[in-house]
Amino acid sequence: MNKIPYKIYLEESEMPRKWYNLRADMKNKPAPLLNPATMQPMTKADLAPVFCNDLIDQELDETTPFFDIPEEILDFYKMYRPSPVVRAYFLEKALGTPAKIYYKFEGNNTSGSHKLNSAIAQAYYAKKQGLKGVTTETGAGQWGTALSMACAFFGLDCRVYMVKVSYEQKPFRREVMRTYGASITPSPSDTTKVGRKILEEFPGTTGSLGCAISEAVESAVSSEGYRYVLGSVLSQVLLHQSVIGLEAKAALDKYQIAPDIIIGCAGGGSNLGGLIAPFMGEKLRGEKDYRFIAVEPASCPSLTRGKYAYDFCDTGMVCPLAKMYTLGSSFMPSANHAGGLRYHGMSSVLSQLYADGLMEAVSVEQTSVFAAAQLFARTEGTLPAPESSHAIRAAIDEALKCKETGEEKTILFGLTGTGYFDMTAYQKFNDGEMSDVIPSDEDIAKSLAKLPKVD
Amino acid sequence: MNKIPYKIYLEESEMPRKWYNLRADMKNKPAPLLNPATMQPMTKADLAPVFCNDLIDQELDETTPFFDIPEEILDFYKMYRPSPVVRAYFLEKALGTPAKIYYKFEGNNTSGSHKLNSAIAQAYYAKKQGLKGVTTETGAGQWGTALSMACAFFGLDCRVYMVKVSYEQKPFRREVMRTYGASITPSPSDTTKVGRKILEEFPGTTGSLGCAISEAVESAVSSEGYRYVLGSVLSQVLLHQSVIGLEAKAALDKYQIAPDIIIGCAGGGSNLGGLIAPFMGEKLRGEKDYRFIAVEPASCPSLTRGKYAYDFCDTGMVCPLAKMYTLGSSFMPSANHAGGLRYHGMSSVLSQLYADGLMEAVSVEQTSVFAAAQLFARTEGTLPAPESSHAIRAAIDEALKCKETGEEKTILFGLTGTGYFDMTAYQKFNDGEMSDVIPSDEDIAKSLAKLPKVD
Repeated sequence: MNKIPYKIYLEESEMPRKWYNLRADMKNKPAPLLNPATMQPMTKADLAPVFCNDLIDQELDETTPFFDIPEEILDFYKMYRPSPVVRAYFLEKALGTPAKIYYKFEGNNTSGSHKLNSAIAQAYYAKKQGLKGVTTETGAGQWGTALSMACAFFGLDCRVYMVKVSYEQKPFRREVMRTYGASITPSPSDTTKVGRKILEEFPGTTGSLGCAISEAVESAVSSEGYRYVLGSVLSQVLLHQSVIGLEAKAALDKYQIAPDIIIGCAGGGSNLGGLIAPFMGEKLRGEKDYRFIAVEPASCPSLTRGKYAYDFCDTGMVCPLAKMYTLGSSFMPSANHAGGLRYHGMSSVLSQLYADGLMEAVSVEQTSVFAAAQLFARTEGTLPAPESSHAIRAAIDEALKCKETGEEKTILFGLTGTGYFDMTAYQKFNDGEMSDVIPSDEDIAKSLAKLPKVD
Repeated sequence: MNKIPYKIYLEESEMPRKWYNLRADMKNKPAPLLNPATMQPMTKADLAPVFCNDLIDQELDETTPFFDIPEEILDFYKMYRPSPVVRAYFLEKALGTPAKIYYKFEGNNTSGSHKLNSAIAQAYYAKKQGLKGVTTETGAGQWGTALSMACAFFGLDCRVYMVKVSYEQKPFRREVMRTYGASITPSPSDTTKVGRKILEEFPGTTGSLGCAISEAVESAVSSEGYRYVLGSVLSQVLLHQSVIGLEAKAALDKYQIAPDIIIGCAGGGSNLGGLIAPFMGEKLRGEKDYRFIAVEPASCPSLTRGKYAYDFCDTGMVCPLAKMYTLGSSFMPSANHAGGLRYHGMSSVLSQLYADGLMEAVSVEQTSVFAAAQLFARTEGTLPAPESSHAIRAAIDEALKCKETGEEKTILFGLTGTGYFDMTAYQKFNDGEMSDVIPSDEDIAKSLAKLPKVD
């Protein structure tokens, strides 16, 4: 067989035309979202003031295996997709491993990550419904940037509530969003009731994702012609992100490559859920077997140290409750530099798969993550996002195990994005000033004690 | 015929394996570099203390049409190349033009630009010669980043003299370079004689490219096992950058697309010279005809308002003299945000082509450039570099002319890079605080009066 090329691109004609709904193949379905007022499963009518209609259908549908990707979204995908599956020849060489390492690279677009895959879908359905605009929150900024791009494309107004500390520390992210026409509000703000309440209770707070979510939801439901959109956690998002896994599988299949291990970083689960979807489908249907590894930061270890329980998705408790591995909605992760992995909970779909023993999880410390990022940058060229570097760390660790055992395993990991807006974190690492702060059992127990009681 | 895909990628096997030396097809060869001490053409021996041996051969060779690209460089190219030729369907639609717009996108690598194409070549030859390291200067930071990546890859030491104002205003660029292991010195510095002299003469100066070049050259010639490398202007750089045009031509040929107009931004000329090379070769050989347009900033208009004469390449006057369109080496451009286009002179190759009437040149004002950048970002997704946006501006202007005349011209332009490290400039534009400062005839005459006298 010919040498595998450095990068495998699909032809435009080979790109997926349907999203894959992993839930259709799950025997144990993820637990339903609950209405915080009634503690009953959320209905379409309950969700209608918050989400776009078509997206609610996708959110609630646990049986339809495939959804057609609308032509307008396919056209947009063609601008920045397919993303390549890259063979990490030079990383393998640097490690001296017999393992074969591949990564699916989602960072070659201006949002800098895979988030654009769902942003354009959500913006499309908002436009289709005749809405004026959408609201959302952003922490690290990838999602807000992606949504700004998507809204600019469809001519929708875009209101982003940006966690205040990020708003101040990442002015460049803010300017990218403004260039695409979005309006950015540092959260908590005095533009919403929940924001004012939080500011009163915690003056001087620098905000959190959970708090920004509450503000964005309030802003949507109190404005005519607006809905709220979210970049992770939700099942609809995992559905859209299945394009990552479908492309990856098609690319690997072209060269008869079957991965043994599939690795992804996990914050809310959007990337990992999308990457593994078609492979996990095969495993669920008993057609093939793979090892799946979710990698999370030691500072925010929802799968490895959290509890599988119903919890609030936001600080203001205005959102539905989800059953998930959670550290408690009041958990405050330490100042880890992977902003996209600082969410207290994990996608219900992934949580159920983990509970069923279909997926493994590991946690890694950020200094070792940045060491992996640096090695990757110097050998493979691309400077990775801190979030993505969690997956790099785990992939390197698995490849080094192969070096010990001599096994020629094939590893696929998701390189979700680039770190061009995360240079403050790299500077800390370059200056030797980065440390690891891991929550104590007591800290986690404290926030878990505040979990809502659900019968 | 099938619809042209959004992105045309070459297969790995279709990638160019040779660089094309445009000078071989030029009847009027570019004027030789002169030794500043003797005012005689630079010999190989003159250049040996400054440049790597193989690169000197490439610099002086005006007759060999093709140079094999070494395997090690081809392998590195495969990590981030081929770069796509993209059909700007959505930009065309937004403009309502019958013109067909294509762009060759060189920004999908961590250096953020085409500079990596020559950086990896220059690092390779330095390594091959057994050197310890290389020195260079950087202004906007693209070149320094590219060279840092290339040196990390080959295990070479990399010393970058960064124009002080950029060092201070672009700390993130600096950190990217440090992540790749480069050492960065703000210029002028007290680490070189020429730096100390400039600091004494102009205390408080924020530096210039010409001054950083002088420091980098001194640092190389006074250190055992070091040579100096440069990211633009030189003929060797244009040779390496021919990979842009060769790939673009191969991709267009696959779909029988022949551009009528080829447009590139022009600072020192590395991108434009590379993009047009094979097309200009056809024109020089009388095989085909194309219009070529160099786009420069109105604030630094070397082709459109400069003089074709021998001039110094650096402020310290330690470098060889080159015959080029120049504004004078003492010309200080206003604070234009396209840092990569602020050089006082233009590549000798391009200067000769322009003098021979084979290429056109236009200058554009930065507010209109950023308006074009914003439109491009919102329609085509990618947030372009300020430098590249000069080419976007000119391409849009040509497409709008087609709208008036109804002509279905095919336009190809070079999108050299992304603007992720240029958000300060975008912020100025977003806030409506950007203005255009155009040098007066008097200013230009003043610096031209200081041109060296060459018989």
